[in-house]
Amino acid sequence: MFPRTTHLETHFKGSATIRDVVIGMSDGLTVPFALAAGLSGAVDNSFVVLVAGIAEMTAGSIAMGLGGYLAAKSEADTYRSELERERREVREQAADETKEVRQIFAGYGLQGPALQSAVNAVTSEPEGWVRFMMREELGLEEPDPKRALQSALTIGFSYIAGGMLPLAPYAVGLPLATALLASVVITLLALLVFGAVKGHFTGVPPLQGALQTALVGGAAAGAAYGLARLLSA
Amino acid sequence: MFPRTTHLETHFKGSATIRDVVIGMSDGLTVPFALAAGLSGAVDNSFVVLVAGIAEMTAGSIAMGLGGYLAAKSEADTYRSELERERREVREQAADETKEVRQIFAGYGLQGPALQSAVNAVTSEPEGWVRFMMREELGLEEPDPKRALQSALTIGFSYIAGGMLPLAPYAVGLPLATALLASVVITLLALLVFGAVKGHFTGVPPLQGALQTALVGGAAAGAAYGLARLLSA
Repeated sequence: MFPRTTHLETHFKGSATIRDVVIGMSDGLTVPFALAAGLSGAVDNSFVVLVAGIAEMTAGSIAMGLGGYLAAKSEADTYRSELERERREVREQAADETKEVRQIFAGYGLQGPALQSAVNAVTSEPEGWVRFMMREELGLEEPDPKRALQSALTIGFSYIAGGMLPLAPYAVGLPLATALLASVVITLLALLVFGAVKGHFTGVPPLQGALQTALVGGAAAGAAYGLARLLSA
Repeated sequence: MFPRTTHLETHFKGSATIRDVVIGMSDGLTVPFALAAGLSGAVDNSFVVLVAGIAEMTAGSIAMGLGGYLAAKSEADTYRSELERERREVREQAADETKEVRQIFAGYGLQGPALQSAVNAVTSEPEGWVRFMMREELGLEEPDPKRALQSALTIGFSYIAGGMLPLAPYAVGLPLATALLASVVITLLALLVFGAVKGHFTGVPPLQGALQTALVGGAAAGAAYGLARLLSA
């Protein structure tokens, strides 16, 4: 009944959990890195940079994880209420709903007796009819609520894991300038690797994914650094 | 030919630009606010908090805007390459593709002559057949590339505009503790308002949207503040 879902899944070449790890981690690398680099242009103290980076990592992972979870939950609520509405409409306004099925099939080029038979086939079974309307009229697929929680946690923790890489050099007692340089080198390498892997999961060629992810991180860090220097000049 | 797109659009009760502004702004309120609050627990200097907040705002808006733009662009690339592949398959492997059309209609409950007529109707016009496969087999809608750039810019700038609210108290020379308190009050009020408006655009009831958005911001800021205090104790 729902070939699209299956097909979309096969488009991600790997498990959904690995995908969440890679996406959370490559995003978590970017902003804590940029913030730490930016702040390095304004303060003379590795510890402040480290604390700011950890605060960002915490806030960002909660915003991303909890925000994503609540969004997924409200999507599931919307699906349920739309499902109830379609069930009611199929029961109480069957003529209108039949007309909508006819319009959908007519849109695919069906005419005459073929159109009539197709409409009869779909409208002969109420629950199948409702699912047809959900997908064809509203474009809604049934969300998996368990998946949302797992995905939110995975992305949130991966964001933290990703953020640890650019912050590590500030934590080990290096002079600030050395820590910044080490953070830039480590993070750019990590962004290239994760960008390539992320590309694998989002359908972007590895080299393009690597360069794009490094570009976003580099642009964000460069702008943050420049602005912070300007402010404290 | 594509009733779903039209229908989805009507589910967002307002212009797409207003939606982007609200989403960017309510997200931009959260992380800069939480970072500033967190850092207030660790340093004794409003200026450092302000610079860190501005660095985050810059980095976050670039990561969100540029990252979103590149993702939308690669989605458009994927659509184009899948479209080319489907065109080739319809030309060169017409028998297999016809079988796939048959399976899709059979999945909707069509049988016998109705099934045959439906398959004939779709496969009689190559370009319509290709679009049918794109949507039914791959679940892909044609993305609008202009929309992506506009949306990325709108969300990025709205993130900055949102971030300015929690940072304003740190910029006007208040003592740090007073600035933190003012930032908390201003931001919680703003999160409630924007959460309610955001709910309007994402289909969540206003009160629920307001509380959820405030909860995410509050949890992020609370965790960041607690951790920063712990680190600098």
